[in-house]
Amino acid sequence: MEKILIKQYKKPKITNSMLIGGLPGIGNVGKIAAEYMVDILKMQKMMDIYSQYFPPQVFVNEDGVAYLVRNSIYYKKLPGKYDLIVLVGDFQGTTQEGQYELSYSTIDILSKYGLKMIYTLGGYSTGKIVDNPRVLGAVTDRSLIKNLMDHGVVFPKGEPGGGIIGSAGIILGLGKEMFSIDGACLMGETSGFFADPKSAMNILKVLSSIIGIKIDLSEIEMRSQQMEQITGKAVEEMQQRPQNKEDLGYFG
Amino acid sequence: MEKILIKQYKKPKITNSMLIGGLPGIGNVGKIAAEYMVDILKMQKMMDIYSQYFPPQVFVNEDGVAYLVRNSIYYKKLPGKYDLIVLVGDFQGTTQEGQYELSYSTIDILSKYGLKMIYTLGGYSTGKIVDNPRVLGAVTDRSLIKNLMDHGVVFPKGEPGGGIIGSAGIILGLGKEMFSIDGACLMGETSGFFADPKSAMNILKVLSSIIGIKIDLSEIEMRSQQMEQITGKAVEEMQQRPQNKEDLGYFG
Amino acid sequence: MEKILIKQYKKPKITNSMLIGGLPGIGNVGKIAAEYMVDILKMQKMMDIYSQYFPPQVFVNEDGVAYLVRNSIYYKKLPGKYDLIVLVGDFQGTTQEGQYELSYSTIDILSKYGLKMIYTLGGYSTGKIVDNPRVLGAVTDRSLIKNLMDHGVVFPKGEPGGGIIGSAGIILGLGKEMFSIDGACLMGETSGFFADPKSAMNILKVLSSIIGIKIDLSEIEMRSQQMEQITGKAVEEMQQRPQNKEDLGYFG
Amino acid sequence: MEKILIKQYKKPKITNSMLIGGLPGIGNVGKIAAEYMVDILKMQKMMDIYSQYFPPQVFVNEDGVAYLVRNSIYYKKLPGKYDLIVLVGDFQGTTQEGQYELSYSTIDILSKYGLKMIYTLGGYSTGKIVDNPRVLGAVTDRSLIKNLMDHGVVFPKGEPGGGIIGSAGIILGLGKEMFSIDGACLMGETSGFFADPKSAMNILKVLSSIIGIKIDLSEIEMRSQQMEQITGKAVEEMQQRPQNKEDLGYFG
Repeated sequence: MEKILIKQYKKPKITNSMLIGGLPGIGNVGKIAAEYMVDILKMQKMMDIYSQYFPPQVFVNEDGVAYLVRNSIYYKKLPGKYDLIVLVGDFQGTTQEGQYELSYSTIDILSKYGLKMIYTLGGYSTGKIVDNPRVLGAVTDRSLIKNLMDHGVVFPKGEPGGGIIGSAGIILGLGKEMFSIDGACLMGETSGFFADPKSAMNILKVLSSIIGIKIDLSEIEMRSQQMEQITGKAVEEMQQRPQNKEDLGYFG
Repeated sequence: MEKILIKQYKKPKITNSMLIGGLPGIGNVGKIAAEYMVDILKMQKMMDIYSQYFPPQVFVNEDGVAYLVRNSIYYKKLPGKYDLIVLVGDFQGTTQEGQYELSYSTIDILSKYGLKMIYTLGGYSTGKIVDNPRVLGAVTDRSLIKNLMDHGVVFPKGEPGGGIIGSAGIILGLGKEMFSIDGACLMGETSGFFADPKSAMNILKVLSSIIGIKIDLSEIEMRSQQMEQITGKAVEEMQQRPQNKEDLGYFG
Repeated sequence: MEKILIKQYKKPKITNSMLIGGLPGIGNVGKIAAEYMVDILKMQKMMDIYSQYFPPQVFVNEDGVAYLVRNSIYYKKLPGKYDLIVLVGDFQGTTQEGQYELSYSTIDILSKYGLKMIYTLGGYSTGKIVDNPRVLGAVTDRSLIKNLMDHGVVFPKGEPGGGIIGSAGIILGLGKEMFSIDGACLMGETSGFFADPKSAMNILKVLSSIIGIKIDLSEIEMRSQQMEQITGKAVEEMQQRPQNKEDLGYFG
Repeated sequence: MEKILIKQYKKPKITNSMLIGGLPGIGNVGKIAAEYMVDILKMQKMMDIYSQYFPPQVFVNEDGVAYLVRNSIYYKKLPGKYDLIVLVGDFQGTTQEGQYELSYSTIDILSKYGLKMIYTLGGYSTGKIVDNPRVLGAVTDRSLIKNLMDHGVVFPKGEPGGGIIGSAGIILGLGKEMFSIDGACLMGETSGFFADPKSAMNILKVLSSIIGIKIDLSEIEMRSQQMEQITGKAVEEMQQRPQNKEDLGYFG
């Protein structure tokens, strides 16, 4: 079998587009944000991507229906300059080769749709609970920084120190070097302990401002508040337990 | 060498068939059940599958004869609508790529034999000894659920939570997405501590009812009882030992 | 680059041959035995095998000269029925795929030299020091057993329990299944704690008897005695130390 | 995508050249030395090498600009017999296959530029802080030893015991066996605890003497002294802390 198998359902006429990529990762920030966009903007599925670079696994939904793990690409035609394409999925490629091949294939097939700009969304692990999580940025072309800062993205010196590992980084890097498409990574600060809709919401605020698309955030705000109640309680309980080093280290 | 090497011994005229897959896994439930079918139904070997995706290993039988590890496919022509094809073997593919490639190749070659339905058999780990192990189901087409439930398969909400990993899942997933063949996974509850013929027997009861083939279960019932005596003693001994946390956690 | 690169130095006219394979492994028994044959029989190098399936490494000899790690094949024309071919080397393939590919390639290229029989040599780990290590056997054709037993090879029921993993097994398995060449594995009992020339010597005694080639064992006997002095002292020291569980378990 | 992607910026007319390779490794000695040459000699970039054998990662510079990880090759035409080519980079290949493929590709493409000699630079871990770190050597042709010794390289018997693992070894080994290009590895002694500019400086002293190129070492000497102040303090602090076994073992 081919290492990457694409089932394409729609071939929309798109000549100018931007890609938003949000796959599972730290705090699932990117995945939550990107899937929220797909839902709230009622985007249409363009293709499913199956691959040996994903685990040999089916997920089973609540009713007992199993489906092969995958990445999916959705699109929405927009009145503005760029149409919108969103990459979501169950997994990132699980190997180094898989990361490169999947990211390359995704950009390659989308390059037929006039891809002009890439935003990847991800989490930035702080290792502790932060009250007002920031959105950090990194870009593949220096000229993009000013505009992002105007919309609230921060570029603290020397962060992220170790660079960006995984699809949020490699999609940008391959996009720039192999396809000459500029890109930016938006990283929402997150403790990294829980799935973090609040950090995802922050990213969506900034992103919708940057790309000029209105995104109704009321539902993710609700989920964010529910999550905070749960995690708030968990943190409280941890703090009331007799402290040991590891707990302290973990929750800072 | 080719990554997967198939030695085909028989090319039976089969135009409508169903595949039963049972490879090693949790409690070896699927393997025990599928191998029992091959034996008790006196099925004929159709092909051996050798592969780099298996360990570089020979097994040595009691007399000192070594044979290369493999998967094997057996068949039996039946009076009913579907002829029977069973996949058994020494190993699942040991890598992610291997799981995909082996499963794909198996379905691909069997698709020439009018493959219409796939049942994969496996264990569902409970982490404790269960008196009356159930048979859980998952399907790749919602329409199959009703019939399975009528034959005693249960579909508890949210189980299996993490989906199905390995050949029991990926054969179904690839069958559905790449070959449009529906399938179901039958998972026998098992502690996961021992090879579990009782759980395999339960699956065979349900399966024979579903596919309408009589399977004489007297021999596996005997093995199941022998196994219960052994494991029953082991559990008793564990319980009589001064308890420590790990023992408790393990045997619940 | 190709995954396996062969530099062939000699193309002898050989139409009937047997292969002896001895690569690093448990107690380095197979490697020591095979390399001793190459030295003592003054065999000629036929080819070097380089591969990505070996570590990315050079060894450096005492003078500071570095050489790329490899497997090598030597040959010697003999007056009897079969000419002799010996496989030795620095490493076995380090991955599953590598084990299959290297073994397959080796047999494949040697099949041009009328390969009729394969003996692989290895260690059989006892986990304790044995005074009179036996030579265990496994064969890919039942008819070979009688002859091997006549030369002192033993076939204890159910040993080796887990089969034979690595090149000593896979060369036999692929030879049989893919090239229809029969083979036997000779396993010298060894503690597995040290490089074990004594076990290698035992194998050579048996092997020279089986294949009817006289091998002068005086030098390996000397090395074996030296090694026993060293390891004997080590064991003594271990036994005189205040005992703890692990020491007991390890040296039995 | 191709597993190794080369973007070549310049195609200088070079017919006789020597390659200096310094990639990340023990104490980053080779990388520091090679990058220093590129900077101080104002070498020109000839090509970037991207690959699936590197991590799926972008690095982000201080300003927030992300760039895909890579290896790079620089050159400088020289008045002497050989022009100079230097290999530097962010990573070595992370897999065994990657090490072989990247090294082979690098030599292969450079062989068009009359490559006649290879020097690889690396660290040699002593496991303790050494006051006057030596430069050890290993060569792929015995005839090179005398000249290197004349320039201060030492060849202590039996060192390095385990050979040379990674790009510093495999580039030499493949250069010799596959391209018949002689080579030497220069290994600077280093504790291995810190990035070690002092060891890199020592290598550069020796190397500049061997290849007859003047390299201004004043800047790396300064960095070396700064580093010694930092690490000196760290060692002092360690020694003043109540000692435990692990500290002792680590700092000797």
